[in-house]
Amino acid sequence: MEEALQKMDAFFNPHSIAVIGATKKTDKAGNVIFKNLAINKQRGVLKAELYPVNPGEDSILGFKCYKTLSNVPGEVDLIVVIVPAKIVPSVMEEAVNKKVKTAIIITAGFKEVGNKELEDQVIAIAAKGGIRVLGPNCLGVYYSKTGIDTLFLPETKTLTTGEDVVATPRPLPGGIAMVTQSGAFGVAALDYLTGRQMGVSKFVSFGNKSDVSESDILNYLLYDKETKVILVYLEDVKHGRDFIKIAKKVTLKKPVVVIKSGRSSAGARAAASHTGAIAGSDKIYDAAFEQSGVIRAHSMEDFFDIGKALAMQPPAVGKNIGILTDAGGPGVMTVDELETLGLTVDHFTAETEAKFEELKKKGAILQIAATHNPVDLTGSVTDEQFVTSADIMFQDPNIHGIILLGLHHMPGLREKYIDGIVEVAKKYQKPIVMCDIGETEMALYTRSRFDRLCVPSFGSPEDAACAMASLVNYGQYLKRNGAVEDYIANYKKTCSIAKPKK
Amino acid sequence: MEEALQKMDAFFNPHSIAVIGATKKTDKAGNVIFKNLAINKQRGVLKAELYPVNPGEDSILGFKCYKTLSNVPGEVDLIVVIVPAKIVPSVMEEAVNKKVKTAIIITAGFKEVGNKELEDQVIAIAAKGGIRVLGPNCLGVYYSKTGIDTLFLPETKTLTTGEDVVATPRPLPGGIAMVTQSGAFGVAALDYLTGRQMGVSKFVSFGNKSDVSESDILNYLLYDKETKVILVYLEDVKHGRDFIKIAKKVTLKKPVVVIKSGRSSAGARAAASHTGAIAGSDKIYDAAFEQSGVIRAHSMEDFFDIGKALAMQPPAVGKNIGILTDAGGPGVMTVDELETLGLTVDHFTAETEAKFEELKKKGAILQIAATHNPVDLTGSVTDEQFVTSADIMFQDPNIHGIILLGLHHMPGLREKYIDGIVEVAKKYQKPIVMCDIGETEMALYTRSRFDRLCVPSFGSPEDAACAMASLVNYGQYLKRNGAVEDYIANYKKTCSIAKPKK
Repeated sequence: MEEALQKMDAFFNPHSIAVIGATKKTDKAGNVIFKNLAINKQRGVLKAELYPVNPGEDSILGFKCYKTLSNVPGEVDLIVVIVPAKIVPSVMEEAVNKKVKTAIIITAGFKEVGNKELEDQVIAIAAKGGIRVLGPNCLGVYYSKTGIDTLFLPETKTLTTGEDVVATPRPLPGGIAMVTQSGAFGVAALDYLTGRQMGVSKFVSFGNKSDVSESDILNYLLYDKETKVILVYLEDVKHGRDFIKIAKKVTLKKPVVVIKSGRSSAGARAAASHTGAIAGSDKIYDAAFEQSGVIRAHSMEDFFDIGKALAMQPPAVGKNIGILTDAGGPGVMTVDELETLGLTVDHFTAETEAKFEELKKKGAILQIAATHNPVDLTGSVTDEQFVTSADIMFQDPNIHGIILLGLHHMPGLREKYIDGIVEVAKKYQKPIVMCDIGETEMALYTRSRFDRLCVPSFGSPEDAACAMASLVNYGQYLKRNGAVEDYIANYKKTCSIAKPKK
Repeated sequence: MEEALQKMDAFFNPHSIAVIGATKKTDKAGNVIFKNLAINKQRGVLKAELYPVNPGEDSILGFKCYKTLSNVPGEVDLIVVIVPAKIVPSVMEEAVNKKVKTAIIITAGFKEVGNKELEDQVIAIAAKGGIRVLGPNCLGVYYSKTGIDTLFLPETKTLTTGEDVVATPRPLPGGIAMVTQSGAFGVAALDYLTGRQMGVSKFVSFGNKSDVSESDILNYLLYDKETKVILVYLEDVKHGRDFIKIAKKVTLKKPVVVIKSGRSSAGARAAASHTGAIAGSDKIYDAAFEQSGVIRAHSMEDFFDIGKALAMQPPAVGKNIGILTDAGGPGVMTVDELETLGLTVDHFTAETEAKFEELKKKGAILQIAATHNPVDLTGSVTDEQFVTSADIMFQDPNIHGIILLGLHHMPGLREKYIDGIVEVAKKYQKPIVMCDIGETEMALYTRSRFDRLCVPSFGSPEDAACAMASLVNYGQYLKRNGAVEDYIANYKKTCSIAKPKK
């Protein structure tokens, strides 16, 4: 590993951590963060040495507490800083002497409230010692594998009724890296990803990004084996040219999906007062993303849906999509949206048509079933019909991906077809995306089962179409850059979703 | 009630029902439908007389069975027809003799598979007796209050594991009428509405609409006191001019939200092979909807989100929106989307600004809080700060509606503010819409509580913005037509959501 990467790695895989500003006082960030780490240490997840630093305490949660960072015995790779802003420079001076590699500065009250000088001072000190700094004004890192968790938002909250409820959950391990400029959006994303069973490889909130920027993190994640897709929330981009250069390199190997807020003029004003981001013209961003192969999402749901699709399925090498449905109306809605997104739903080859005719003759599917594309097996669908039809469609060289609409309401459909479809899909290197509409038990069960088996499922035709479009567009991008063969050859159809349960 | 309406009313409030083709054979439509009605009768929900008709049975589920419709003693208001297509004409002849008012023909195998002649024959017979026909090839009606339920899709399904799960739920009573050309979309909608706790006034699936069309149903629902908003899924419109005329009348009193599929050329082809709908140019539909004040949704989620907003909140009389948030990033995303949708997020009046300055002086909100619009109370938000700020914003004459972003992750925020916000909102005739991001316990709890208290809540900034835009656009439409004062005067801020639980 080159030196720059090795240094960045100390954010995620440190041998030792000092928490500057750890405290016993509950509800304080210094308490929540130290407790996260202490519990992970006790559970054996966190292997790194852990040192609380606070001049007013002898021990915290059973850990010997040190007056200052200098007092900590042995080396310290990573410091997590939660002391008031004005004390941060002196902490950094100590860190330089201690040869610390990386610092996560949680503390707010810097550039974002006008204290640019103080922030510059902190970074100048860090630079002397070659310390990489995340923040200030950030949430830091969550990495489940090594137990790094610097989020100061407690996992649960107690309602006035006395009930304990999950408030800021930590997601399970998986293939999605979540990188964010906004801490609030970051925790909301963790909540969303957890609830939707999407697993996370690394979470990074970089706040004011006075040192480590989105480009540094992209470059690190390029080499991170656990990360299959990178999701990034941005309000502005630092060093545009560097970003484009690095993003170009990354996007040929891993999809990068960005949601950049402040795209409207009123939004840009709001962003400026939020993080002091100078957003610049939104068209410049569009051009930069386009040029570097970054996929730009225009809504939160699209952002996550695209991430899910790219984490679970290979890209499509063409843009003609086969639709397999048991519900006419939702099938039409899917066609509408695909066409709006620039994809096509053209007819099958004569060979495929003949195969479907054969099925009709044998009585394996109904005479009234539409078999041109969309294939509509009608409300009389059975599990077997779905599986057989999907297999035929995958074989068609004119079909580059399949959207399956399996509305579970149809009387003859049970859940058996789910595993059957997954088995069929495994035989081909073409993507498949699933939709079932509904928000009660069987719909939730169906979608969850597909997700766990790595077929990304969605609750509306438009979401499924958006997911497929992202697989097509990413495939086109790779093709234009001569990278599609390599990507698909390296692509393993393994689920990057959290915890595949039976 | 005029005669036409009275006749239509027999679909929903019949004094007596005969089920032609009721059967004991499980899994048959004639069994599921008769059982729905029989259970509702036994529970005392269905007050109408109920007669199974089947020449091969003496009794079904404890009800005396009649050989033919003619044998049924007394009057029959509504017949539900589930016999094979070729027998339907003779059933209709009997129905004419029996002076039946309305017929729901569930049976498929008519125009949609090319048997137009048979369908014409059925309708010609019905016309002789003045019988209004719903269908054929439809699911018919669900109306919880009188226990009419002709849906042949069972509420639960048994998985291969032996578990019983909810598959096609029936929603609770509420203010949303759901009208659909596609049966599959209809049941999916019921599933969605139930899961999202959106209550339904009437459900009507009209299938081939060879007699009763979308226009007839709109006209009926105009006078239906339980219906506050009408949601319609369409693949084509029958008698365009009639539709525009009736829709114009309805939309001045009740919002009508349409999702019309087949909007793309490939989609139109697919729709034609699905229901034989001749979709025509999509631009003509756009013009017709625009002209008649019908709100057209372009995705399934928008369709339901708009329906929810209009069922729960009054329209806005202007298009400048106040944003109140505890999360900067999601606040900016909301501004972006509002501006994209043609709304504004302009500054407050000087008076409002002064009130916020006063709050800062008193220390009631943080100095660093942004208070221009968006109001960003930051991660240090408390329940009280949210409630006080909302009240100030509602008072501003330049603010026509509020979007509240209450991200529950912030440490100082508990759930107490929810009821506080609802109390404040009740004092004003301006709409409010809520967003919290996340898919685990506290997010679900927060949104559900707001929904139950009639503040429509959404899981993403874009969904909340879309909901607010629909309230603004509908307000503008009413204003242009001089109907806004009347609408708002008649508007009661009562929750039309299902079953407000404590």
